[in-house]
Amino acid sequence: MNVFEKTERFILKHKMLSKGDRVIVGVSGGADSVCLLLLLWELKEKYSLSITAVHVNHCIRGAEADTDELFVKELCEKLSIEYKSFRFDVTAFSRKNGMTVEEAGRTLRYKAFEEVSQGGKIAVAHTLNDNCETMLMRFFRGTGVKGLCGIPPVRNNIIRPILCLTREETEGVCLKNGCGYRTDSTNLSDDYTRNKIRLRLIPFLESNFNVSIAETMARTSELMRSDEDFLSLAAQQAYKNCEISKGVLDVNKLNRLHPALQKRVIRLGFVEYSADLHDISEKNVSAVLSLLSGGSGKTAQLVHSLRAVREYDTIRLYKEEKAEFVCQNIFPESKTYLESENTYIILTSQTIENYIFKTAFDADRLKFPLTLRTKEPGDKIYLNGIKGHKSLKKLFADMKIPATKRVSLPLLASGNDVLWVYSLKTNDKYKANEETKNTVYLYITEE
Amino acid sequence: MNVFEKTERFILKHKMLSKGDRVIVGVSGGADSVCLLLLLWELKEKYSLSITAVHVNHCIRGAEADTDELFVKELCEKLSIEYKSFRFDVTAFSRKNGMTVEEAGRTLRYKAFEEVSQGGKIAVAHTLNDNCETMLMRFFRGTGVKGLCGIPPVRNNIIRPILCLTREETEGVCLKNGCGYRTDSTNLSDDYTRNKIRLRLIPFLESNFNVSIAETMARTSELMRSDEDFLSLAAQQAYKNCEISKGVLDVNKLNRLHPALQKRVIRLGFVEYSADLHDISEKNVSAVLSLLSGGSGKTAQLVHSLRAVREYDTIRLYKEEKAEFVCQNIFPESKTYLESENTYIILTSQTIENYIFKTAFDADRLKFPLTLRTKEPGDKIYLNGIKGHKSLKKLFADMKIPATKRVSLPLLASGNDVLWVYSLKTNDKYKANEETKNTVYLYITEE
Repeated sequence: MNVFEKTERFILKHKMLSKGDRVIVGVSGGADSVCLLLLLWELKEKYSLSITAVHVNHCIRGAEADTDELFVKELCEKLSIEYKSFRFDVTAFSRKNGMTVEEAGRTLRYKAFEEVSQGGKIAVAHTLNDNCETMLMRFFRGTGVKGLCGIPPVRNNIIRPILCLTREETEGVCLKNGCGYRTDSTNLSDDYTRNKIRLRLIPFLESNFNVSIAETMARTSELMRSDEDFLSLAAQQAYKNCEISKGVLDVNKLNRLHPALQKRVIRLGFVEYSADLHDISEKNVSAVLSLLSGGSGKTAQLVHSLRAVREYDTIRLYKEEKAEFVCQNIFPESKTYLESENTYIILTSQTIENYIFKTAFDADRLKFPLTLRTKEPGDKIYLNGIKGHKSLKKLFADMKIPATKRVSLPLLASGNDVLWVYSLKTNDKYKANEETKNTVYLYITEE
Repeated sequence: MNVFEKTERFILKHKMLSKGDRVIVGVSGGADSVCLLLLLWELKEKYSLSITAVHVNHCIRGAEADTDELFVKELCEKLSIEYKSFRFDVTAFSRKNGMTVEEAGRTLRYKAFEEVSQGGKIAVAHTLNDNCETMLMRFFRGTGVKGLCGIPPVRNNIIRPILCLTREETEGVCLKNGCGYRTDSTNLSDDYTRNKIRLRLIPFLESNFNVSIAETMARTSELMRSDEDFLSLAAQQAYKNCEISKGVLDVNKLNRLHPALQKRVIRLGFVEYSADLHDISEKNVSAVLSLLSGGSGKTAQLVHSLRAVREYDTIRLYKEEKAEFVCQNIFPESKTYLESENTYIILTSQTIENYIFKTAFDADRLKFPLTLRTKEPGDKIYLNGIKGHKSLKKLFADMKIPATKRVSLPLLASGNDVLWVYSLKTNDKYKANEETKNTVYLYITEE
């Protein structure tokens, strides 16, 4: 079986192409993506494919990158394949978004692919070797069955037709077709984790443990994918059974599940709150599961403002919503919309008739602008009934404000002092009294 | 938390010890096993343990091994712990049984432990590092979820109380207790796969990818154990549902299972036929599953004379039983017991009245001794009705002999010619006729 037949078989096995498909091919100019383009080009007529090659210039390697771009352009002209190119300042994007250069490159690349494909298929040139590197990297960092599924042959509209080929084979296809390929000089350096795996670890493993480590990893990932699929279906079924309402799980039903399913059900519960579940660690999941044996009111704080709280016989999973008005400045004679409560806050030196809530402050004791925000650690408020200040934490607990509400309740602060907590309390120290010369009124209105 | 507390917590978590337990401790004299002995010795009173240390001298490293033995003996005397030692010629045993020296050592060691323990608990000194090495080794060779469960903390009566400790920690315990430990010189050589992992790979991984690779592997194995347990329970349930009778599975029910379960159900089907399921590869399992879409009568040949055959709407899993009489020599005037058929075969020049079956051969055309055996590839028989010889394969097919029966049906051969197939056919070329001078009669009797 030659490389072309092997690839076509792999495409069929994973149902990657249908007749008349519109396919975007990501082409960097390296051996893998050139090979991918050549193989799809050979299938073009048979499947009536409409192919567009997309090249993304990351503007990292200067002239070298420009030559890559030109190489891909000329190759496409030779093959009469539609060609589009993009230029992104990946370094600037990575800095701005707190990503590694690699992550930034990937994000921008797929953005370009999606833009051109308009929902059509996107073919990318991952190989058996990429899969092997990915699996080793994940294994050493720590992972479960899901991580060991490796790179999936198909994910949504992304297809990986040459995931069955080794790098040696893709290079062979390029040479055989006489079109050559470009070599990314950063691939040869030992700087990045992936390169360390590619250039040092894999050769060591091949010569000491397993000459066909890439094929072995491919078999492992296939086994894992099958198991993961079964586990995931079982978990989805269990989730449906445990969910009382959105994000609220029945503790008794959860308790009856196998631990392997319990963990997966918790993760599923967070799916709607977070696009990237990778960040939810085992430790996070365990923290939520510890609520199964805790008392009502106990909470678990996870990453990304994700939270879980035990409420009687349920566990409620939620995302702590930071309201839009966080740290908004409030000036006198202003009207501010409070989205979370769907009301307006008016701060004015005039009295207004018929408005539903009124608190009067001594303007001379306030520092303008005031801030409209949610609770911060250490927040305190002075109330006449008690000696000294009361922490907001204690106030909320005494007034039995549910945990979910506590983090979203708006308050008005002057410097470090909390003046007023929405619908709850006003700081007695700042209230206007008989000595007040300048009064500021706080109104709440729905208009 | 110190090392002792950590170990006790681990023992509790995995319910390794109960009050009054009788525990055999395998002590080689290395840091790990000396640490294990010391920690159990500290728990002796609390759990009312009765401890016996067992040392196995593998007789590989000569004087060095003898000094190890003496070291353990003296340590046990100092701790007032009962002590037993064994000596085995591991090299000879490995050669005799076609095992590696490592396998042979393990086999003999556990045999000694079982002998002393009489079903009581056996504590062995595997550590976090051993688990890490095992997992890496399996991962590089190719494995599924089960292989990545690593070394189990408890398996039957074997407990591994210090599987939570690193090698550094076990050495620390020995030094702190001032009793030292012995170093196996073969552990320092780079000869074995495990040593290569220990001495070269792990340091490389620690300095390039993950400083706490051993802890990471421990977490992965815990995750995998939980998933494997769930998958295994699901498979057992599915197996019960698919099994019609011993080793016979319902094809329609198998077809409805998730592929991940199908594979596991097939493996479970072989459990009763093979002690070591490790030898049943993915390829073997796939061969059996391919019968789901094959016609009746198709067979899959696996390792260890394990077979699977599609019989209408079932798949029958079985072990090809080589009958005891394979290649048994049969002389004239003899009576041979045929265990598989529970009958006797008599070969005699005399006629015997009242015996139930009789075939008469021309003795001068036979080469004695005859052989009593089962079918071999290429076996043929001459029958008058056809021109020339007929292969036994074709004969069996024509007569619709089930595949399971074909391999166990006894036959009588003279040199390379099949004379007679039990209860089926006699070779017409060898039958006695009017020209025969010396006749040999074949009788079958149940007495």
